[in-house]
Amino acid sequence: MTDVSITRLSASTADFDVALSKLLAWDDSVDHQVNESVRHILHQVRTRGDEAVLEFTAKFDQVNAGSVSGLEVSRERLQQALETIPAEQKAALETAAKRVRDYHQRQLQSSWQYEEADGTVLGQKVTPLDRAGLYVPGGKAAYPSSVLMNAIPAKVAGVAEVIMVVPTPGGVVNDMVLAAAAIAGVDRVFTIGGAQAVAALAYGTDTIPSVDKIVGPGNIYVATAKREVFGVVGIDMIAGPSEILVICDGETDPDWIAMDLFSQAEHDEQAQSILVSPSADYLDQVEASIRRLLPTMERADIIAASLNSRAALIEVADLSEAAKVSNRIAPEHLELSVADPESLVAEIRHAGAIFLGRYTAEALGDYCAGPNHVLPTSGTARFSSPLGVYDFQKRSSIIGFSAKGASDMGKVASVLARGEGLTAHARSAEYRIEDGAE
Amino acid sequence: MTDVSITRLSASTADFDVALSKLLAWDDSVDHQVNESVRHILHQVRTRGDEAVLEFTAKFDQVNAGSVSGLEVSRERLQQALETIPAEQKAALETAAKRVRDYHQRQLQSSWQYEEADGTVLGQKVTPLDRAGLYVPGGKAAYPSSVLMNAIPAKVAGVAEVIMVVPTPGGVVNDMVLAAAAIAGVDRVFTIGGAQAVAALAYGTDTIPSVDKIVGPGNIYVATAKREVFGVVGIDMIAGPSEILVICDGETDPDWIAMDLFSQAEHDEQAQSILVSPSADYLDQVEASIRRLLPTMERADIIAASLNSRAALIEVADLSEAAKVSNRIAPEHLELSVADPESLVAEIRHAGAIFLGRYTAEALGDYCAGPNHVLPTSGTARFSSPLGVYDFQKRSSIIGFSAKGASDMGKVASVLARGEGLTAHARSAEYRIEDGAE
Repeated sequence: MTDVSITRLSASTADFDVALSKLLAWDDSVDHQVNESVRHILHQVRTRGDEAVLEFTAKFDQVNAGSVSGLEVSRERLQQALETIPAEQKAALETAAKRVRDYHQRQLQSSWQYEEADGTVLGQKVTPLDRAGLYVPGGKAAYPSSVLMNAIPAKVAGVAEVIMVVPTPGGVVNDMVLAAAAIAGVDRVFTIGGAQAVAALAYGTDTIPSVDKIVGPGNIYVATAKREVFGVVGIDMIAGPSEILVICDGETDPDWIAMDLFSQAEHDEQAQSILVSPSADYLDQVEASIRRLLPTMERADIIAASLNSRAALIEVADLSEAAKVSNRIAPEHLELSVADPESLVAEIRHAGAIFLGRYTAEALGDYCAGPNHVLPTSGTARFSSPLGVYDFQKRSSIIGFSAKGASDMGKVASVLARGEGLTAHARSAEYRIEDGAE
Repeated sequence: MTDVSITRLSASTADFDVALSKLLAWDDSVDHQVNESVRHILHQVRTRGDEAVLEFTAKFDQVNAGSVSGLEVSRERLQQALETIPAEQKAALETAAKRVRDYHQRQLQSSWQYEEADGTVLGQKVTPLDRAGLYVPGGKAAYPSSVLMNAIPAKVAGVAEVIMVVPTPGGVVNDMVLAAAAIAGVDRVFTIGGAQAVAALAYGTDTIPSVDKIVGPGNIYVATAKREVFGVVGIDMIAGPSEILVICDGETDPDWIAMDLFSQAEHDEQAQSILVSPSADYLDQVEASIRRLLPTMERADIIAASLNSRAALIEVADLSEAAKVSNRIAPEHLELSVADPESLVAEIRHAGAIFLGRYTAEALGDYCAGPNHVLPTSGTARFSSPLGVYDFQKRSSIIGFSAKGASDMGKVASVLARGEGLTAHARSAEYRIEDGAE
């Protein structure tokens, strides 16, 4: 059933704000049954290690291994996958990896330090994480692009060991995923998944080393497990459904825009595709393209469900009002399909990624533009950023006082510490005052 | 009761790792009663807004106001506080603020962009958050330094509106806190606290605008509320008890080191102070200083409780082994009280802040060194960083393909998208291939 009836809104109507809020609302309420199940799995792996990992892998993935070592994929096997996949796929993965690497190298941050007149030194030491864990979904939705997007920033940051986990339900291995791991420089791969894989990476087992941060997408069990282990290890964001907002001046081929909206909608039924234009006539044209093209799509059912429940065509007075609507939404993906995208981008305050001009299909960003495809969803672009090299580096403040600096600042610290009633702080600072105040 | 009995460990013993793990273990298990109570408060404020804020403020702080506007502190009142506090305190706050501002200005990140040979443009646009909320604890533990450390990075980042909340139990206002708000450039102040203040900042009410990120320390109710609203807004880290690790070569005045350990221990009974030295004799000297100085401390009871339950004096073979122990702990504060701290710092991989040399008391970093005093605790320095300007900026990827670039990369994206079974992605990219492949 691929009938579509897409919500129409106009920014000029009195109830626009309410209608928009309703459209954006997204039920992320916690499922208590999932929570309980995840907590059980985490506890088992934390206390029983490898043994529990083997049990859950047998139970959930129908994979029986004698030991967790038996679930490790050798480097040779990764390399073999790379030589096995079609040459065209291998070349495409290598091109994508090169572009992602080139772009992310520009995100590398370095230590810095400066010296004050009295010889006091201040700065920040930037270091990579020691070890990162990368979760890769298995089964039907196996995404080699996700391996590149998560592993390459870690390796660019200088993470010594990137450990990938990927479930192989029923023993089915995806060669393109293994090939991507080979290209990205993943150090070790285990064919485990679910909450048990997250637990193994967070707590470590005899066979699987514990990591400092876990990144990568997963189902509700994986997401819940990541939320639970946060604090023991770092995690990337917990992603909501994917979204696209297209702002179009009405001059782009409506078929192109229809297909761009489809490319979000095909992810899943909760994905959100929104088109904003000052031309009501153009909104009609795109809707006509949608109706005409939809029956030709392989994933027509998912696309139709997504468009019917979560899409919208929004009429605005002009492009500035379109930018305002976009800032209100803070979309994950924002296409500026207009004649002069550079001037419009100045009005955009919040978006995960901004795609400039009619040629820049969002799908290019998913695979091979260079920037990361892991982006803040559900309006979190108001306060968070694309996954990047900076997520695999951390900083330590550097403070080195000269005798003179410690003496001068000891007086300041003493006044403030005593003002806060923290006299050990005050006396510790006062010991370093040169005239021996204490 | 100020008797102390401090744990002694030696890195050379077989059970050292186990003993160290036990010492570091920290019970952060969730209190279900607190959870329920916080969820109730969040729900009430989310649905009933100002009215609920007034009710909870009356109930928990014994402050009855006719309206939430009545709980706002005017700019004039902040300025008045600044003129009211002792001149010495005002000067100390201003000196500290200037140093914090100078240091943090070096953390500002800028947008960047580059163009490829075919005219394709890639980059990252860096923008400040629109609005940040700053929680400041009230009552006994009122910390003006915390106002400076949280508000200044936000203002340096360019956050247009910093909204501070501070409870005033029984109507007691701390002028030094208000003075710090005036100096830091806080835009609006409301005298509310607890989970109700976190809820108001996250969801907004008729009077209090919603913010994009909430930072600042608080009790278990505040911490739990922040954890709950994470996703609706950004939050800073959820801090555990404060910790210090001192590495000393045995040549620093033992009284100084004893006082440095006290300055952590006086925070609360769960705070952790650890001294590591290659000299067992020096550990004895510091322990003697501790016994002699403890009775002279205003907060001797808290210090004794903290030292008895969580402190340790650890003997190591040499400074390199001390660095290894430190990397294992990933301390919040690390003092390198040694002759050549610069060479030792090269061996340090994880720490919130590193204090170089005998003069650099950790307490200086708490107030006026310049770097932030909000630091990762409980070993999270393995993957996280001090609070900084970067926490109040976010990034948007910029992708602008030329016609040629879109055509070339459309071919790559098409192969990968089809490999992943995402044909709308593939067709969206293929539309932009110049020879009209579709």
